[in-house]
Amino acid sequence: MKSIVRIALDVMGGDKGPSIAIAGAAETLIRHPDVRFIMHGDEALCRPILETFPALKAVTTLHHSEISIAMDDKPSQALRRGRGKSSMWRAIQSVKDGEADVAVSAGNTGALMAMATFCLRTMQGINRPAIAAIWPTIRGESIVLDVGATIGADARHLVNMALMGSAMAQILFDIDKPTVGLLNVGSEEVKGIEEIKLAGKLLKETDFGQLEYSGFVEGDDIGQGKVDVVVTEGFSGNIALKTAEGTARQIATYLRQAMGSTLMSRIGYLFARSAFATLRDRLDPRKVNGGVFLGLDGIVIKSHGGTDAIGYAAAIDVGYDMVKYELLAKIQGMLPVHDLVSPVTDRPADDTTGLSLDKEPDL
Amino acid sequence: MKSIVRIALDVMGGDKGPSIAIAGAAETLIRHPDVRFIMHGDEALCRPILETFPALKAVTTLHHSEISIAMDDKPSQALRRGRGKSSMWRAIQSVKDGEADVAVSAGNTGALMAMATFCLRTMQGINRPAIAAIWPTIRGESIVLDVGATIGADARHLVNMALMGSAMAQILFDIDKPTVGLLNVGSEEVKGIEEIKLAGKLLKETDFGQLEYSGFVEGDDIGQGKVDVVVTEGFSGNIALKTAEGTARQIATYLRQAMGSTLMSRIGYLFARSAFATLRDRLDPRKVNGGVFLGLDGIVIKSHGGTDAIGYAAAIDVGYDMVKYELLAKIQGMLPVHDLVSPVTDRPADDTTGLSLDKEPDL
Repeated sequence: MKSIVRIALDVMGGDKGPSIAIAGAAETLIRHPDVRFIMHGDEALCRPILETFPALKAVTTLHHSEISIAMDDKPSQALRRGRGKSSMWRAIQSVKDGEADVAVSAGNTGALMAMATFCLRTMQGINRPAIAAIWPTIRGESIVLDVGATIGADARHLVNMALMGSAMAQILFDIDKPTVGLLNVGSEEVKGIEEIKLAGKLLKETDFGQLEYSGFVEGDDIGQGKVDVVVTEGFSGNIALKTAEGTARQIATYLRQAMGSTLMSRIGYLFARSAFATLRDRLDPRKVNGGVFLGLDGIVIKSHGGTDAIGYAAAIDVGYDMVKYELLAKIQGMLPVHDLVSPVTDRPADDTTGLSLDKEPDL
Repeated sequence: MKSIVRIALDVMGGDKGPSIAIAGAAETLIRHPDVRFIMHGDEALCRPILETFPALKAVTTLHHSEISIAMDDKPSQALRRGRGKSSMWRAIQSVKDGEADVAVSAGNTGALMAMATFCLRTMQGINRPAIAAIWPTIRGESIVLDVGATIGADARHLVNMALMGSAMAQILFDIDKPTVGLLNVGSEEVKGIEEIKLAGKLLKETDFGQLEYSGFVEGDDIGQGKVDVVVTEGFSGNIALKTAEGTARQIATYLRQAMGSTLMSRIGYLFARSAFATLRDRLDPRKVNGGVFLGLDGIVIKSHGGTDAIGYAAAIDVGYDMVKYELLAKIQGMLPVHDLVSPVTDRPADDTTGLSLDKEPDL
């Protein structure tokens, strides 16, 4: 367990700029006095905000960077424009250089993943990164990955994700042997899911020690919390995550409309106000903020771009936990087992992000 | 517009057997006096139930079939065991033979799709079938396809689905030019979505007349009703549909727990009871029951297996509309335009269902 957790922040990322990131950091510091911050951003903007949080200021080093990555920059654009110079890149570079244990950004996901992959590279034994989301369920929380780092996955990548997701679940949920399911569609005989079947076979037949393979799960099993870790390739994972968010928003709209529709329902709402507050709390997306980039030689956390300080602090907290309980060492400890399965995979390893980052981009 | 709509029912399909299907048919008959039913099922079981609905009995022909397909039969098993003989097959055969205009079953989806594809074959110009779901949205309803007929899709299949879904939307929503979106993930630069980009290009550049292409949509746009028709390949479509169902169930659980948590909230619930009834009504999965198999030379409707008579009737109603307003003719009317785009597709046409149905199975 690390005694001090050093966190690099891209304070310029996100829809609302540095005020959210800095206030979020102050929030985390209250919960975790053993953090130190390295902030990267426009000094003229950030310094005055930081001054208003004296306790935070005392544990923070602020580095000036002139360039901020915009929320709508394309990954390739961001890399061209921001490599070496932007607050986003520099937060990641702090991890690479060993000055920080984790980088957090609310900047755009594509750019962050591109920079993180380009700067940190994938871990030994891992070919492609993944983004793991924390998903609220009836039982509590589950981890779902990949929610959009790369598209498609062969059996090896799916098994790797099962291992990485399990390491994360061990830390977040404090359990020894997380249950793992592979996301699939109902019919066993449909073509095109050979990779998933092969991954299932590998997970069943190999004793990975630190996870319990539970078989296939379907889309509706995620919210029921059937397993601790749900593994899928990035396209369907992204669709699942956003569809769930959209459905939650849709039902909240229905509920608001229903409760405002008649005098009686408005009175009912007043009586049940605290119950509605509880409900709102359970549906609060800020509570589960923080996508974890897995498979890279360093930890990077993506916060929602539109979150507030409370949500941002939740993302930093996830990063804190990953460092404190040594996610990377946990993953590395599982990987020797993984090597056993490599020979059976039938496809050449894909490139890392699909962004052709293995070649030097034309900068 | 058809004057009489002849509907074949596999009354043995579903979790609850013929009582649901027959009561559902009676329900539809009240709304649509111009229907005639051809029911396939175990006569000893069905006849007594049918006797209790005299008006329905008067417009129904009941055919005995000895074999019923089980909900957990694999598609290949179902085909082997039930081809020619099962109530499911015979309902489809009624369409093939021109005795019925549409077949409805609450039996298992994989078996129904396998039999429908094997018996009816795909339409001229269409290589693969798709299942279209009706999806409740903030704006009303949208159509989402494919929710699980086949896995993966090339640009041509995606464009075909856009056309077929639009034809269905014209009928269901009574609009001339439905808006169509292609389901995608956020980042434009991620690899593996070339098919979607190509399909987008084709939909943008070709004037299909009867649809308005709105570009890419993401998972959270579905429930917002951003477009009338959402097109995606079957794996992610199935994951999206089931994830939305799971999320709706999850939030309903939260809501129940919240409203039952304190005396005040229970009192509030009593006051707002009619509002909650409205909400329940909007979330009622029976209201949007009925998956439409598109791309086959005949119309087949899949009802939820666990539905009741009201839900079953909703599925029959969808089939009724598709026949009444001539879905197949509408699709065929769009297809000559489609031929223009065939040459640009870069992949060989896939087989139809992934179930190797183009070869005679070993029966």
